[in-house]
Amino acid sequence: MSATKLVKSYIQGQWTAPNNPSQPAEVLDSSTGELVAHVSAEGLNLEGAIDYARSTGRKNLQSLTIHERALKIKELAIYLDENKKTLYELAAQAGANKRDNFPDIDGGIITMFTISSKARRELPNSKVVVDGNTEVLSADSSFLGTHIYTSIPGIAVQINAFNFPVWGVLEKFAPAFIAGVPTLIKPATPTSFVTAELVRLMVESGVLPEGSVQFIAGSARDLLDHLDYRDHVAFTGSAATAAKLKSHPNVLEGGIQFSAEADSLNAAILGPDVTADSPEFELFIKAVFNEMTAKAGQKCTAIRRAIVPTAIKDTAIQALAQRVRAKVNVGDPRDESATMGPLVSREQLEDVTSAVNTLKAAGGTVVEGGTPDAGDSKGAFFPPTILDFADARTPEVHKVEAFGPVVSFLGYDSVEESVELAALGGGSLVASVVTHDADVAAEIGRGIAAHHGRVHYLDRVDGKTSTGHGSPLPHLVHGGPGRAGGGEELGGVRGIKHFMQRTAVQGSPDHLTAVTGQWHRGAAVNCVTRADVEAGTGTHPFRKDLSTLKIGDQFKSDYRKVTLEEITAFAHETGDTFYAHTDETAATANPFFPRRVAHGYLLVSWAAGLFVEPNPGPVLANYGLENLRFLTPVTYDDSVRVELTAKRITPRVTDDYGEVAWDTVLYNQDAEIVATYDVLTLVEKVDTTYAS
Amino acid sequence: MSATKLVKSYIQGQWTAPNNPSQPAEVLDSSTGELVAHVSAEGLNLEGAIDYARSTGRKNLQSLTIHERALKIKELAIYLDENKKTLYELAAQAGANKRDNFPDIDGGIITMFTISSKARRELPNSKVVVDGNTEVLSADSSFLGTHIYTSIPGIAVQINAFNFPVWGVLEKFAPAFIAGVPTLIKPATPTSFVTAELVRLMVESGVLPEGSVQFIAGSARDLLDHLDYRDHVAFTGSAATAAKLKSHPNVLEGGIQFSAEADSLNAAILGPDVTADSPEFELFIKAVFNEMTAKAGQKCTAIRRAIVPTAIKDTAIQALAQRVRAKVNVGDPRDESATMGPLVSREQLEDVTSAVNTLKAAGGTVVEGGTPDAGDSKGAFFPPTILDFADARTPEVHKVEAFGPVVSFLGYDSVEESVELAALGGGSLVASVVTHDADVAAEIGRGIAAHHGRVHYLDRVDGKTSTGHGSPLPHLVHGGPGRAGGGEELGGVRGIKHFMQRTAVQGSPDHLTAVTGQWHRGAAVNCVTRADVEAGTGTHPFRKDLSTLKIGDQFKSDYRKVTLEEITAFAHETGDTFYAHTDETAATANPFFPRRVAHGYLLVSWAAGLFVEPNPGPVLANYGLENLRFLTPVTYDDSVRVELTAKRITPRVTDDYGEVAWDTVLYNQDAEIVATYDVLTLVEKVDTTYAS
Repeated sequence: MSATKLVKSYIQGQWTAPNNPSQPAEVLDSSTGELVAHVSAEGLNLEGAIDYARSTGRKNLQSLTIHERALKIKELAIYLDENKKTLYELAAQAGANKRDNFPDIDGGIITMFTISSKARRELPNSKVVVDGNTEVLSADSSFLGTHIYTSIPGIAVQINAFNFPVWGVLEKFAPAFIAGVPTLIKPATPTSFVTAELVRLMVESGVLPEGSVQFIAGSARDLLDHLDYRDHVAFTGSAATAAKLKSHPNVLEGGIQFSAEADSLNAAILGPDVTADSPEFELFIKAVFNEMTAKAGQKCTAIRRAIVPTAIKDTAIQALAQRVRAKVNVGDPRDESATMGPLVSREQLEDVTSAVNTLKAAGGTVVEGGTPDAGDSKGAFFPPTILDFADARTPEVHKVEAFGPVVSFLGYDSVEESVELAALGGGSLVASVVTHDADVAAEIGRGIAAHHGRVHYLDRVDGKTSTGHGSPLPHLVHGGPGRAGGGEELGGVRGIKHFMQRTAVQGSPDHLTAVTGQWHRGAAVNCVTRADVEAGTGTHPFRKDLSTLKIGDQFKSDYRKVTLEEITAFAHETGDTFYAHTDETAATANPFFPRRVAHGYLLVSWAAGLFVEPNPGPVLANYGLENLRFLTPVTYDDSVRVELTAKRITPRVTDDYGEVAWDTVLYNQDAEIVATYDVLTLVEKVDTTYAS
Repeated sequence: MSATKLVKSYIQGQWTAPNNPSQPAEVLDSSTGELVAHVSAEGLNLEGAIDYARSTGRKNLQSLTIHERALKIKELAIYLDENKKTLYELAAQAGANKRDNFPDIDGGIITMFTISSKARRELPNSKVVVDGNTEVLSADSSFLGTHIYTSIPGIAVQINAFNFPVWGVLEKFAPAFIAGVPTLIKPATPTSFVTAELVRLMVESGVLPEGSVQFIAGSARDLLDHLDYRDHVAFTGSAATAAKLKSHPNVLEGGIQFSAEADSLNAAILGPDVTADSPEFELFIKAVFNEMTAKAGQKCTAIRRAIVPTAIKDTAIQALAQRVRAKVNVGDPRDESATMGPLVSREQLEDVTSAVNTLKAAGGTVVEGGTPDAGDSKGAFFPPTILDFADARTPEVHKVEAFGPVVSFLGYDSVEESVELAALGGGSLVASVVTHDADVAAEIGRGIAAHHGRVHYLDRVDGKTSTGHGSPLPHLVHGGPGRAGGGEELGGVRGIKHFMQRTAVQGSPDHLTAVTGQWHRGAAVNCVTRADVEAGTGTHPFRKDLSTLKIGDQFKSDYRKVTLEEITAFAHETGDTFYAHTDETAATANPFFPRRVAHGYLLVSWAAGLFVEPNPGPVLANYGLENLRFLTPVTYDDSVRVELTAKRITPRVTDDYGEVAWDTVLYNQDAEIVATYDVLTLVEKVDTTYAS
């Protein structure tokens, strides 16, 4: 055993290796069979690592806001992007060529950028995220309800698959980190040396607070024995291992939050509208080809089942076979002429060979490939393999996964049957539907959606712009029901919420304001009126910058009386001569209006005039408006006034301003609510206008 | 065995009882010990019931839209409300008095009304629910992503606890039904005769489509053997049973969607600000009293741990003891002088006695109650019991649940410690925090949130209006992490989505439009211009009623030029004289504006003028506006035009109109997007204006 090749773990802030472990795993080069690394977790202090994450890691992360954490993820992404070269080099030893590495290494980095950006745009710059609307639970509005997300009180453990040693880490790490939860990474042994290098770069970046990341190479051993309901385990790998982990007492009884993403028998369906000369035909063949050959088919999302109209099946198979023969050159990734690398290991080679044999025995006719090169005794090379099934309902083809460059063709005779066949996979991560017919797209999509985590449409419109069947995107959820593991990851800020607990909160407006950090209607206000402002006895909230503005700061306007002349003038000036504003008889006949009424747009324009602070100040712009509802019509001779209250303040970490949402209520002279909405403004952190 | 007392099951549209079962369970009256019912599922065709739900039930539900299903839930609620008398009568045999029955029977009915109403207000009237925003995934917007919810493709099995034989059924049934998923009800044996009567009324109502509900009294036997990843099992009951069910291979490997809600050791925390003469002190004592005595403490949400400042602990204990002595008269629910009934059964009596003994042995001093009346050999009466723990960290008090009228008092010395003690429960359904101090409310709330499904604040403001610690509300999620089972139910439309699969969909605008039923920007349109309308060669979409309007129907306006005079006039007429519109120098100095710009409100007012169809027609009103964002400032001499496209059409089932959301985009003369928003309108189903 070569001690220098022993993959070190990163525990409690130290790189640690077991001293002379008794039975380390050997990792061999996928192409040459040479020793790459020894891996063992023997004697490592897993319990200590968990305690360290719970204490130091959690404390450090909890001292930051969501935006601060998200910004660190962006900084880390920049660092990794500048230093990714060693990852590319190492990954070649595990059989990955440049094309294979892009979705793993660059894909992982891009995922971090996207999640960071979405977190800063879509989540508050605080530690509590409000979910959904406020529910008014009592007639007098003294008892309200809402929902909040807060960080789960434990740690995030990721148990990864060998095929994405970089992306698999980062797509789980970034959301957990932004949620405020420290991570413990447990890689798959065959590519753990690549992940070790990634973790080395992550630590070296200096971006991450102490304790927020740890790494354990080798067997997970008794890891789950030390976890409980506070913790989240995200597993990617085989269904069998997932089931084993899920049956651990700390999952069954202890309440560990367990999420699994397993390989599945993903389908691509060619629509019945597609003929051999449609652009969609070529797109389909290319998609199947790419999914077969990328990473030598070792992707959880790869297409395993090509479901095509029976009439076109032979044509499709031949087109794919031709493309395979023309384009694929299997070889060592370091050989630039090779277009497809080996499987990751000889063990995988055995597994794939065995699965293909099972599929053949079940009735799959080999059109291309089908057996490894008998002369290769060191590498893990397996040729692209196409199988043709005469019976599309052969159970094995919907159940046995050859985790390599292998695809099976199945014919269908009706759209309904194509849906049934896709569903026979028993739950999949993704299906592609290749059709130019929107009705077919809808019928198949709605039919298969509940069996899938993702449905990917492909046609001449998005053929060039699609990111592809196999690529989970940070914006969209990744996972799937049934065989796919039943878990869900990513999905923009949804992925961050997977590491947070949703809790209902009920109470008075003041208590809900305090716990959420957002002002709730009915809570205490610091109110100034126009008269206060004019008398100099109160400061208009628009005069306060982010350093002084507080939620609950409120401006209450005077009344303004509505006249028929003004309604009429507004109708003519804007061109909005809708009869409700201009025709007394017709307006009265309308079921919702008493007689001619003021335009809603007139009212919100007036409201702006009523609450405005005209001079330059910290409020830079009104950039939008949310949830406007007109609740009571306003007719001439009514009066309106407005109350505007600072509801949500979101300072940006990297700008000298932030967003402020103002709860806005228009009342009429009878204290009825005329309209409610949120006014969205940009407000300076420090009032530069008056600072000098 | 009395055959007439055998509880029948409702399977495949028939009331069925096993013929002379060998070992039926006996249900005895909780007060008198008399035989109430025999229960057995022996020989019942469970597999047939599941097949029937999968075929007939699913087909019938899938033929209805979400609103149609929701309306049936409302109709059912009305029917049950009119016929609930027999439920009240029967429940008395299981120990429930009138006050106990209200949250169960009326609570269940109210839950249906609320969920039905929220579904019709917050979800589309279709079969697909769109989740979140559209993600633009390519620079040219030809490749988009979004998320949809569709019905899970299986059935909903509910396995219920004995304590809520009505609410427990309805709170699970209503969301599953609205999601389009047929239900199979498996009640707890001790109150299965009450649920049987509920199901009888549900069937008798004639409201429910065939196959949408079935009912199996007796043991669940091999039920899970026939379920798979398509199905959802919602379990309420003990943690031990939950763990057993979760270890079934069809959950571990088969992917059954399993949700558990288990009893937990819920806490009530009295804030450090509260003194014996604060209103909050009395509210706290009342809340603990109510939770102890309602249903004789047999509620999953009941307060088990009263966490109070050490200095006030004795005072609090004495106040509670006094209230118990003054108010509680334990007795048969049919005796009107009794204020608290028995436990449900002699078995429960044994369990509670044993748990109380464990707590006593662990150091709990009995202040009140503590042992059952030795003279009662038939009923299941247990007295209100107060325990005092000197050591607040005694493990048993955070772990052993006496599922009866039992509460333990624990003292704390700092807010931080109160949070730690609450968290020692290892995950709970709900905690009450009784304080009038908003800072204390925030600190405790944020500290305990991630350990709880719900946090309930109580103070003098909401003391009278609060619906109480123990009541899960249909608006808010119910469930909790860890010991509480890790599941989530209810929460308004969230509860419906628990019975739907979230799927990412990616594709061209046309494909996403087709599968979601909502128009996506970039998809095909049926466009008319002002010139078309004036020439009579096109119909303005505002002239189309819901029977003819289609998503994608679009109106494209002419340009309107912006002049400085109009900006100035608008500023003066509305009063909105913000410097960006009125002061050239100051406007130019603002980082976001080139020079004086048009008011956003002027632009949206003009947009209305540009797209308006002034005469009476099917569009009745513009009731609101969503997601308005101003993206490019518009200055004088610019021009603007608007495109308005029917995006989402929601006909109401019970009204002659519906909602139409119009995607609205304002462009400037350079084809830059000035603003985007959704205009919300009410549109008639049939154009009554022109129908005659």
